[in-house]
Amino acid sequence: MKSTAVCEILSVGTEILLGDILNTNCRFLSLELAKMGISVLHHTTVGDNYERLAEAVDRAVGRSDIVIATGGLGPTADDITKEVCCKQFGFELELNTKIADDIKSYFERRGKDMPLSNLKQAYCPVGGTVFENRNGTAPGMGMKKEGKCLIILPGPPYEMAPMFREWAIPFLEEYRTCTIVSHEIRTIDLGESTMAEMCSDLLENENPTVAPYCKPGESLLRVTAKANTATEADEIARPVIDEIVRRLGSYVYGVDVSCIEEQTVRLLKEKNLTVATAESCTAGYIAKRITDIPGASSVFKHGIITYANDVKEKALGVSHRTLSEHGAVSEETAREMAAGIRRVTGADIGVSVTGFAGPDADEEGKAPGLIYTALDAKDCQICQKIETGRNDREYNRYVAASRAINLIRIYLEGGR
Amino acid sequence: MKSTAVCEILSVGTEILLGDILNTNCRFLSLELAKMGISVLHHTTVGDNYERLAEAVDRAVGRSDIVIATGGLGPTADDITKEVCCKQFGFELELNTKIADDIKSYFERRGKDMPLSNLKQAYCPVGGTVFENRNGTAPGMGMKKEGKCLIILPGPPYEMAPMFREWAIPFLEEYRTCTIVSHEIRTIDLGESTMAEMCSDLLENENPTVAPYCKPGESLLRVTAKANTATEADEIARPVIDEIVRRLGSYVYGVDVSCIEEQTVRLLKEKNLTVATAESCTAGYIAKRITDIPGASSVFKHGIITYANDVKEKALGVSHRTLSEHGAVSEETAREMAAGIRRVTGADIGVSVTGFAGPDADEEGKAPGLIYTALDAKDCQICQKIETGRNDREYNRYVAASRAINLIRIYLEGGR
Repeated sequence: MKSTAVCEILSVGTEILLGDILNTNCRFLSLELAKMGISVLHHTTVGDNYERLAEAVDRAVGRSDIVIATGGLGPTADDITKEVCCKQFGFELELNTKIADDIKSYFERRGKDMPLSNLKQAYCPVGGTVFENRNGTAPGMGMKKEGKCLIILPGPPYEMAPMFREWAIPFLEEYRTCTIVSHEIRTIDLGESTMAEMCSDLLENENPTVAPYCKPGESLLRVTAKANTATEADEIARPVIDEIVRRLGSYVYGVDVSCIEEQTVRLLKEKNLTVATAESCTAGYIAKRITDIPGASSVFKHGIITYANDVKEKALGVSHRTLSEHGAVSEETAREMAAGIRRVTGADIGVSVTGFAGPDADEEGKAPGLIYTALDAKDCQICQKIETGRNDREYNRYVAASRAINLIRIYLEGGR
Repeated sequence: MKSTAVCEILSVGTEILLGDILNTNCRFLSLELAKMGISVLHHTTVGDNYERLAEAVDRAVGRSDIVIATGGLGPTADDITKEVCCKQFGFELELNTKIADDIKSYFERRGKDMPLSNLKQAYCPVGGTVFENRNGTAPGMGMKKEGKCLIILPGPPYEMAPMFREWAIPFLEEYRTCTIVSHEIRTIDLGESTMAEMCSDLLENENPTVAPYCKPGESLLRVTAKANTATEADEIARPVIDEIVRRLGSYVYGVDVSCIEEQTVRLLKEKNLTVATAESCTAGYIAKRITDIPGASSVFKHGIITYANDVKEKALGVSHRTLSEHGAVSEETAREMAAGIRRVTGADIGVSVTGFAGPDADEEGKAPGLIYTALDAKDCQICQKIETGRNDREYNRYVAASRAINLIRIYLEGGR
């Protein structure tokens, strides 16, 4: 492998220094560059100020092989990134008539005339490569000189990110030292430290590396392999992924899956089964998340939110005695809610949540984060008790919804 | 007012340069410093590397009055921020026994012994101010020398932010040039450009400034006043806020309110009324957002998600003829859903949404983003048609839920 190229990311914009916007471009670029085996050693942000920007460009070009500047390519007088970068890097600007036409058509498609000021965006460096912008008017550009490389990209992330992938990655190909590929093994209902202990020897691995992460109610292991090509990297990663999946068993809900609802909707579709939801403390969150997945209408038709106790009786047939003897937040109530929603809706699977999300003290004296989730199907009844130990309403509701959706996954996989 | 102090924010951590974490500290600090009238001219990020960190500290101290470094205060050998910063700024470190005891108790409270490596965190600069950490083990610190100020804070945002507010703001008091206070006027169902036109003369204001922003489905105006004290700033802002509220009328749902659901739940409580939800394309999102507000149980008891057409008939009594003649996504269906949920649940107000969130093509040939929301109450029926023009499922569902909740607000305020 080649020696690693060094890169610096230079963000330009007074709005970042004022805190008006969060700089997410730096992270995106850092992740993409890491995957190419390019080291990012500095992130620098300066405002739309000639002197400080020129100083920052000089310093970045002096200490790095690659400099990527983002932001300040707009049509107004305070947008000076292109002018300053090209001047300091020794490239002249000239009007690019093709880009000028592109910008005109951009406005025409929107039924507008191009303001004259936008013509400024059509000036491009002589001897540089123009990066076309499919999502806005400002083109990006790349220049190479004496082994150094300077790239300029627009600031809005929805313009910058596709342009980086389409234009900058090929432009940087000669600096690539390797290909890094990551895969994520996602688990639910398993603490991060328990998961890490079950795989402690693998965490010492050098290639692929194995690293634990946690998200609300979930733990995941990221397996990252480094090789010359993506195929080779995948070959290195595969046996380690298989070993982890074997060890963690049914806690694993998916590899390279974005969320539990995605995996669960996929399984429901495969088995051609429908689910209906009965929600108390989550109040629609389970149904909302299931229907976040496009095409969920073939597996989800009907849900009832029974936030009040009398509604649990009236709409789901939970018995008055269960509610008065065991309380609304109890295994018995959760089970009757799940059976009730299946009976009322005729769905193949009924799933329910009842719990105490907080933050206020419960009249029954139960702690925030105590939640029961139950599943009812023709051949199966399951109930799980959850104790998050947290007094955080959004967290408790999110985790409760995840665990309810996970119950469906467990049932469909014939597990526990 | 005094001349403005110049500040630089120095983030330390290889995980930021790798893109593993998003640097949100910079934005938080920039916003807080702007409120004190302190100018941030540079954000710099370097990894856990002695040479590059020392260089960055020297440069920052050289060009700025105030340097705030965050991250790299952990107990491991690669955490070097404190050591490097103090050395370059000329402060010696010594063991602070009070802090050592604090760290020991932090572990004791969690039933653990303090690892010896954590003792490293108890070393503090001689002549500096120690900032206690209520949410972790690493203390922060502030040092002043020859008119310059260096502050070091831990990296995790939930440790850094409260420490900044509690310790760093008082420590920086002498650099404060003013107090900046902002208020937000929030509107819904009003485009950002229309809102801006209605207040175009006010956007030219210098103190307070008035700036338009947009969020999904909402537009807001931020009124920012600058004065010596918060009370004076508020006095300057007040007449402008009143004028904006007068001009924008019932589009305004609140001033300094965090979201439409907060304002709506407050109004429902005030009027002692209950609402029930009938949701198709939002599938629980309205109910979830209403119940995000703690204490919503007094105004929300029951909701039904009717994702499939036959469920709209069966559960809400929408007529078969309406569905077949006008389609599920129609004003007629929305109105019957709202009336149905009120009849079924006995709530004071019924609210409904039916629409087409996308991304797939609708069998009825309707465009993604076409949504109807309706309200039914004893003395009032309202229906609104929404056309977002976007093929973005999450956006369309979010906006649909917002507009449904806003219908309740409009009804309660006796509007339109």
